[in-house]
Amino acid sequence: MKPIQVGLIGLGTVGAGTFNVLQRNQTEIRGRAGRGIEVAMVAARNAERAKAYQAIVGDGVPCTGEAQELVNNPAIDIVVELIGGIEPARTLVLQAIANGKHVVTANKALLALHGTEIFEAAREKGVVVAFEAAVAGGIPIIKALREGLTANRIEWIAGIINGTTNFILSEMRGKGLDFATVLKEAQRLGYAESDPTFDIEGVDAAHKLTIMSAIAFGVPVQFDKAHVEGISSLQATDIKYAEQLGYRIKLLGITRRRASSGSTPDGAQGIELRVHPTLIPATRLIANVEGAMNAVVVQADAVGTTLYYGKGAGAEPTASAVVADLVDVTRLATADPDHRVPHLAFQPDAMSDTPVLPMADVQTAFYLRLVVADQAGVLSRITTILAEHDISIDAVLQRESAEGERQTDLIILTHDTSEGRMNEALAKMQGLPTVLAPIVKLRKEELA
Amino acid sequence: MKPIQVGLIGLGTVGAGTFNVLQRNQTEIRGRAGRGIEVAMVAARNAERAKAYQAIVGDGVPCTGEAQELVNNPAIDIVVELIGGIEPARTLVLQAIANGKHVVTANKALLALHGTEIFEAAREKGVVVAFEAAVAGGIPIIKALREGLTANRIEWIAGIINGTTNFILSEMRGKGLDFATVLKEAQRLGYAESDPTFDIEGVDAAHKLTIMSAIAFGVPVQFDKAHVEGISSLQATDIKYAEQLGYRIKLLGITRRRASSGSTPDGAQGIELRVHPTLIPATRLIANVEGAMNAVVVQADAVGTTLYYGKGAGAEPTASAVVADLVDVTRLATADPDHRVPHLAFQPDAMSDTPVLPMADVQTAFYLRLVVADQAGVLSRITTILAEHDISIDAVLQRESAEGERQTDLIILTHDTSEGRMNEALAKMQGLPTVLAPIVKLRKEELA
Repeated sequence: MKPIQVGLIGLGTVGAGTFNVLQRNQTEIRGRAGRGIEVAMVAARNAERAKAYQAIVGDGVPCTGEAQELVNNPAIDIVVELIGGIEPARTLVLQAIANGKHVVTANKALLALHGTEIFEAAREKGVVVAFEAAVAGGIPIIKALREGLTANRIEWIAGIINGTTNFILSEMRGKGLDFATVLKEAQRLGYAESDPTFDIEGVDAAHKLTIMSAIAFGVPVQFDKAHVEGISSLQATDIKYAEQLGYRIKLLGITRRRASSGSTPDGAQGIELRVHPTLIPATRLIANVEGAMNAVVVQADAVGTTLYYGKGAGAEPTASAVVADLVDVTRLATADPDHRVPHLAFQPDAMSDTPVLPMADVQTAFYLRLVVADQAGVLSRITTILAEHDISIDAVLQRESAEGERQTDLIILTHDTSEGRMNEALAKMQGLPTVLAPIVKLRKEELA
Repeated sequence: MKPIQVGLIGLGTVGAGTFNVLQRNQTEIRGRAGRGIEVAMVAARNAERAKAYQAIVGDGVPCTGEAQELVNNPAIDIVVELIGGIEPARTLVLQAIANGKHVVTANKALLALHGTEIFEAAREKGVVVAFEAAVAGGIPIIKALREGLTANRIEWIAGIINGTTNFILSEMRGKGLDFATVLKEAQRLGYAESDPTFDIEGVDAAHKLTIMSAIAFGVPVQFDKAHVEGISSLQATDIKYAEQLGYRIKLLGITRRRASSGSTPDGAQGIELRVHPTLIPATRLIANVEGAMNAVVVQADAVGTTLYYGKGAGAEPTASAVVADLVDVTRLATADPDHRVPHLAFQPDAMSDTPVLPMADVQTAFYLRLVVADQAGVLSRITTILAEHDISIDAVLQRESAEGERQTDLIILTHDTSEGRMNEALAKMQGLPTVLAPIVKLRKEELA
C-alpha cells in the first residue's frame, strides 16, 4: 500500500521533532500503522524560512514559502498544522478541510476558540481533525478521555497542564523564592518565553482545559466562558502557609459537572470551567508533580480516579502525540466516517447544552490570608461574618506576633461554598478597620 | 441503527459491574458509540447459577447455564468472557471466534498463556479480541501502548500491576508489620483472596506484564519465559533499611528492551521480562502509589516518561475497561479489518523475534543484606569479592552493633550488573565463615 502523504506546515520545535520522529522510528511506525507515513511537503511562512527548512529536511522533500501551495496539493492526504496562533492557521486548516484533507494539529488556541467552526467543517467534508498534541503534549489524554473512558459519566477533571507555571511554582516552593525571581530563572533556562503572559496568566492552560471539558461532557468548546487566573500575583508567603497546613499550591485547570444533587448547596447546575492557583493536599499524587511535568486527574463514575502524567511540551513529546494522530488517521483514512471516534467524543446529535456556570456559582473551598491588627475580638468579628454567610470554617492558623508587633497573619481554610457567597463575605471583612491589607483569597480542592 | 448485541459469559464481580455500567450510563455510551450496546444473553456455569443471575438482570435478558448456547447464538455480535481461568474460557473464546463473533475479555491468564493461538484464530476469522480489562483494570494502558504511543520506540515498562501486593507492601511499610500479619488483614478486608498464591507470588502480575511486553515490543506473548518472584519472603527489616537509604520496595513488573548499545556491559541483547520486589527511589511518583492502586510507567524514546494511574481491580473499574472495548468494537464491527488496531500493536508481518533474556543476563542494580560477624576485615573480604566480579558499589550501610552483640547487618547497594555475575559473587560471599545467615538479595531500579 502506498505510503500516506503528509504535508507539514511549520518546521519549528514541534515540526522538526515530528519530522525527526517520523524518520527515526519509521520501521516501528509502519509496523504499527500497516502503512508508511511520508512527509511529502513542508511549508514555511516565507521563502527565506523555506530555504532554511530545505537544509533540514534534505532535497527529497520540497519546501515552500506558500502554505496555500501545500494545502492545495492534491498529492497530500493529511495536513499537519504546527504554526500555532489563530491566523493564518485557521484559514489554512479550513482550506485543507475544504480540499478534503484530514488535519492533525497541536494548536490549542485555535481549537479552544474556533473548534466549533472547524469540527463542523470537517464533519461536512467527512474528514478527521485530530488534536492529541493540543493538550498535555505527549500524554495521550485526549485518547483516554474520548476512547479509554467511554463507559463513564465523567465527574471532573483537574490538571497541571502548563509546564512553565508548574516549573515556577516548584521552584518558588523548593527554594522559597518569589515569583519575579523564579520567572527570570525560568526564562534563562528556556522554560518560559520572553513574553510569558499566555503561560503565567493561565491562558494556555485555559485553552487546553476548554478542549478537555468539551470532550468530557459533550459540550461545545467555550473558551469565552472560562475563568482564567494565573500565578503572577501569587506570594511566597502563601505557599509557605499552605505547606504548614499540609497543602501544595498548583495552577490547576478544573472542569466539573455540577448535577442537581445535594452537592450544590446553592442549587446551580452546569459545568465549572476555571483555571487558578489551587491548594491541594500534599499527599495527593498530583501534588507531587514537579518541574515542567504535566498531569491530569480524571474522576469518573465507573473507573473512579485515574491520573495521566508526562511531558506536556517539547519537540519530541509533542511530536509523539502528532505522530500518534497520524497513525490513527492513516488507519481510518479510507474508512466510513461512522467508524471514527467523534471529534468531541460524542456524536453530534448527542451533544449536551449544559451551560458553563458563571464563577459566582462555582463551589469550592477557600484559603484566606488576612493581615489583621493584633487585638482582642478580631477573630470573632471575622468568624461572625463567615457564619452570617453560612460559610463554615475548616481550620484557622494565626501567626504568633513578634514582640512589639501590632499586626499578624490570620489564615482561614473554609469548607465548600459558592464563590459569590464568599465574595460577599470578603467585601464585609475587607471593610473591617482591623483588617489592614487586601485579603488574599485562594481556592482549595481536596480532589477526592 | 440496531443496538449491537452482547453476550456476557459470567456475572460475577466484573460481569455484574459491566451489566450495571451498561445500564446506568447507556445514554452516554450510546452518545459516544453512535449505537446502543445491549446485553442480549447471559451465561452461567450451571443452571442453578443461571437462575440466580436471572434475578439480577431481570426477565428481559435470558440467562443460560450452557455457555455454548451463548457462543452459538446467531443474534449475538460480541461475546464478553468474564469467567477467568484457562478452561472452559479458552474453548468458549475460540468457539466464539470460530462463529465469527468479536470477543472482549478481562482474562489475563488466558491471553498470557494462549494469546498466540487466540489472536491467530481471530485474525483468520477477521474478528477482534479486545482485552483492555486484562491489564491494570480501569487504567486505559493497553490503549496508551497500542495507540497513544505509536510514534515511539518503547524502551521499558515498569508497573505496579497487582493491587493485593501493593496493599500489603503499603501496610508493611506504613505500620512496620510483617508479611504474614498484613496478609491476614488484607484477607479480612477483601483485598486478598483466601488462596492468595497467584497474587502474592507474582503470577498475576506476570500475566499482565507478559501482555504489555508483547504489545510494547511486537513480540509474541511468552509467559513461560517470565521470571516470577513474589513478596511472601520479603522481610520488614529490608523495607526499613530501604527506607533509610531513600528507597521504597514495590512489587514491579518490568520489561525492557536491551539493545546492542553500551548499556549492556555483558553484551546480551533481548527483552527482559521479570516480576520481583524492587527498590525504587522514594521520590519517584510511582513510589508513592499506595494501597490497592495500580500504576504503570512507560519510558519511550520520543515522549520520554509517562505514567498511568488508577484502580487495577474491582467491579466497576474493570467494567470501565470492558465497556470501552465494547465501544471500540462496536465502532469498528463492520469496518474492514485493515482499519483496526492490530491485536499486539504491530501488524502480523512486522512482529519481532527478539528473544526474552534468561534471568542471568538481566541487568540491574542490587540491594544486599548480609548478617556478618562484627570483627575486623569482614567488609574488606566482601568488597574484594564484589571487585573480583567487576561489581561496583553504590552505597554501604553498616548497622552499629549493640554492646556485647557479636553480629551486625551489612547493607550494600551496587551499581548495575548482570544477575548471573551477581549470583556468582553471592555464592562466594555466602561461603565466607563471617557471613552468618543467608544473604538477602533484592533488585533496585532507578527508573530514570
